[in-house]
Amino acid sequence: MRNAEEQFIAQALAKLGPRAVVTDPADIAPWVTDWRGRVHGATPAMIAPASTDEVADVVRLAAEHRVPLVPQGGNTGMSAGATPPADGSAVLLSMRRMNRIRSISAENRLAVAEAGVILAPLHDAVHEVGMRFPLTLGARGSCTIGGLTSTNAGGTQVLKFGTMRSLVAGVEAVLPDGSIHTGLSGLKKDNRGYSIDQLLIGAEGTLGVITAVALRLVPAVTARAVAWTGVASPMRALDLLRFLEARTSSIEGFELVPQDSLQLVLKHVPGTRPPLDGTHPWHVLIEATTSDSATRVGGELERLLGTALKQGIIGDAVLASNEAQAEAFWKLRDAISEAERAEGQTLAHDISVAVADMPAFILNASEQVERAFPGVVASGFGHLGDGNIHFHVRAASHAAPNWYEAEGLQITRFVDDLVTAAGGSISAEHGIGQLKRAEFARLAEPGRVQALRAIKNALDPLGIMNPGKLVP
Amino acid sequence: MRNAEEQFIAQALAKLGPRAVVTDPADIAPWVTDWRGRVHGATPAMIAPASTDEVADVVRLAAEHRVPLVPQGGNTGMSAGATPPADGSAVLLSMRRMNRIRSISAENRLAVAEAGVILAPLHDAVHEVGMRFPLTLGARGSCTIGGLTSTNAGGTQVLKFGTMRSLVAGVEAVLPDGSIHTGLSGLKKDNRGYSIDQLLIGAEGTLGVITAVALRLVPAVTARAVAWTGVASPMRALDLLRFLEARTSSIEGFELVPQDSLQLVLKHVPGTRPPLDGTHPWHVLIEATTSDSATRVGGELERLLGTALKQGIIGDAVLASNEAQAEAFWKLRDAISEAERAEGQTLAHDISVAVADMPAFILNASEQVERAFPGVVASGFGHLGDGNIHFHVRAASHAAPNWYEAEGLQITRFVDDLVTAAGGSISAEHGIGQLKRAEFARLAEPGRVQALRAIKNALDPLGIMNPGKLVP
Repeated sequence: MRNAEEQFIAQALAKLGPRAVVTDPADIAPWVTDWRGRVHGATPAMIAPASTDEVADVVRLAAEHRVPLVPQGGNTGMSAGATPPADGSAVLLSMRRMNRIRSISAENRLAVAEAGVILAPLHDAVHEVGMRFPLTLGARGSCTIGGLTSTNAGGTQVLKFGTMRSLVAGVEAVLPDGSIHTGLSGLKKDNRGYSIDQLLIGAEGTLGVITAVALRLVPAVTARAVAWTGVASPMRALDLLRFLEARTSSIEGFELVPQDSLQLVLKHVPGTRPPLDGTHPWHVLIEATTSDSATRVGGELERLLGTALKQGIIGDAVLASNEAQAEAFWKLRDAISEAERAEGQTLAHDISVAVADMPAFILNASEQVERAFPGVVASGFGHLGDGNIHFHVRAASHAAPNWYEAEGLQITRFVDDLVTAAGGSISAEHGIGQLKRAEFARLAEPGRVQALRAIKNALDPLGIMNPGKLVP
Repeated sequence: MRNAEEQFIAQALAKLGPRAVVTDPADIAPWVTDWRGRVHGATPAMIAPASTDEVADVVRLAAEHRVPLVPQGGNTGMSAGATPPADGSAVLLSMRRMNRIRSISAENRLAVAEAGVILAPLHDAVHEVGMRFPLTLGARGSCTIGGLTSTNAGGTQVLKFGTMRSLVAGVEAVLPDGSIHTGLSGLKKDNRGYSIDQLLIGAEGTLGVITAVALRLVPAVTARAVAWTGVASPMRALDLLRFLEARTSSIEGFELVPQDSLQLVLKHVPGTRPPLDGTHPWHVLIEATTSDSATRVGGELERLLGTALKQGIIGDAVLASNEAQAEAFWKLRDAISEAERAEGQTLAHDISVAVADMPAFILNASEQVERAFPGVVASGFGHLGDGNIHFHVRAASHAAPNWYEAEGLQITRFVDDLVTAAGGSISAEHGIGQLKRAEFARLAEPGRVQALRAIKNALDPLGIMNPGKLVP
């Protein structure tokens, strides 16, 4: 530990007290390895402020001693954006003690939550007043509002409600100079210059530390209907989406599942069973919801799927007859990654292209990857309605244990090239963090890289906010 | 004209040809005075490129010669953000020749329009394929997509669809270094670093020149219902909004009108008549729409207003019985500014506070202004559902002709102080431009001003993009 770090930690301890400064390696250990266990960092201390003013104190001290900070929420990121560097040169800034829900107003359709509030309890608290925060994802029991905002998280309900960028009504943050940006006043219209809020959303903690967020709420769901359908191709799946969207506004989940992925789930995940009698090359899980007591969402979806069947858009469909069956359908979708891990080594790519281009992209890209890397199995599943799928490549069963290192990087570059050629994004929802930074640097337009660097240097001239992340 | 400007104009002429370079003062004259006729600028030339590449050429030449550019669309801004400085030191960059609609896709719910496309013809073109671009405002026959995006325009349908910030799916722009930012790929999810698109929205041309925009479309309206209601107070008006929002998602216009403003319209605007039999201290114009053929939006609104009447939320209501009456109701709202001008001198303030706080703000602020400046009449009207009203202060009938200069600035400062104390915005939708820059500088938090300046200097280090606008 350098002298500057020692002084910084000692002064933080003096200012914030012992509860806020953790230096025991055993207590720090769970937080210096990323969620997927791939990146191992190190830090001399984890500082956990309990208020916005304390965060500002820490940032000012960090600036004074030139000690970089790595903000962290639930440590559930997919790109190691909250993992400190391995050389121990940065201090972890844990936001988990800032875990107050400051207000919930059904009338204003707003909740203000501190950065360390975990998503699941926020869902519950909001539900108690008859409202809903509609963003959700697998890590809901661990991920925090600050992390979700800093990564512009997506999830399974983006089709109807958008990503965090659409759901954040305002941000409170400590900027790298220690000043507090206060954007929580809940103004629906405010045209006073560049949107600092929008700049901080998705900035992965590189431009400041988000301390609290005003979140837009929607009325609670009064009924949902979940259906499983079999289709001949991803093109037919998109036809089905267009067909439904033209006739109802109730569709909020639309998840594509290839037959191969479904079979892996049925093989490896106990208690799962095929949702349809026959087999189909592709499947779609559909969720329709309503918050309007007058709308019979189940009957509507059943009728629409009946018409889609008659028109030859789909091959078969079944509506979940109760909540247990609805959960069972979702399980088939949510368990794909788990089933793939049980089957063998898998490379994940979180990519997007324009919605209309996605069906052809999935087929072409799969074919090209399988041709270029004999033995692998490529498939795309997930949020077809957002033009965002998880494009996974599974190693051949006889692959060597070092397949990731030997062939993985090559495959990822191959996939990223295909995505870039299609005008798409190599990070649809997982962000850049550390893991995608080299690929981002390789593929981004030079003007864009220059603009990002200029903004970063302008707001964080000392480079103390999450260095080594996101900006190429 | 300095030597640098002469060289810049000569080189632009050589590069872009005579159609693109206007130097005749008579042809330039209409574009150097702002929309409201308050700010008079001057320029040696107006350059009108016809393509993105030509814009990039102009920006690179401007950078080379250090000649500032003032981007302009329809010249309909309310804050003189597109008016060149009076000393003739900047060149006007007219975007009106970039007026192609590049694509419209009902399937993808996207239109791509160049910056110079005027809003009204875009509405028409989109309507032809059964879709709708839902943002609209009074200047729709003149204002351009580039200007609307650069000012994050609002208008009367923000309640349901948001401002431009929510409706823009991507931006193409020339950055101050001459590089082209291409954000038109229509990705619904893309987490590759800071959102340059969001930074350019509302930047008033100070960070680059927007050349084209991807716009989100919604299904065309199949039916609308327009109602006029009388209420006892702004609080009751907000109660009515909450009542309606809890029961239907069809409300997209909700405009507050004080009795005083209605009477001015009836007095000064030919062909107008009172919508209700009795008089009411306050009024609300409501528009409900649907794009769903199954919903009877008129019957629903009538039934809901009937219940609101029974519950004492409103004093009276009438539903427009046909399209002509609907237009007549809107005319009563839209003609308020015109009627005020006919009555005498009026100061306009485009302000916002949190929606829940707006009713009390209107009453308190009006009372305080009228007490502090005896003889004036203060009132708020407009977009109550967005927490955004136009707070107008009318001079006493005996006011001197120099009332604006003598008392106007003092009144504006008084109003802006009240707004700031209430945590609101002194520019809800009109932007900062030139006219509000001093007040913005006086009232903004120092950290915010510093962040804005740092971003401006980072992306436009030569200061060639619309200097003297927006950034304090």
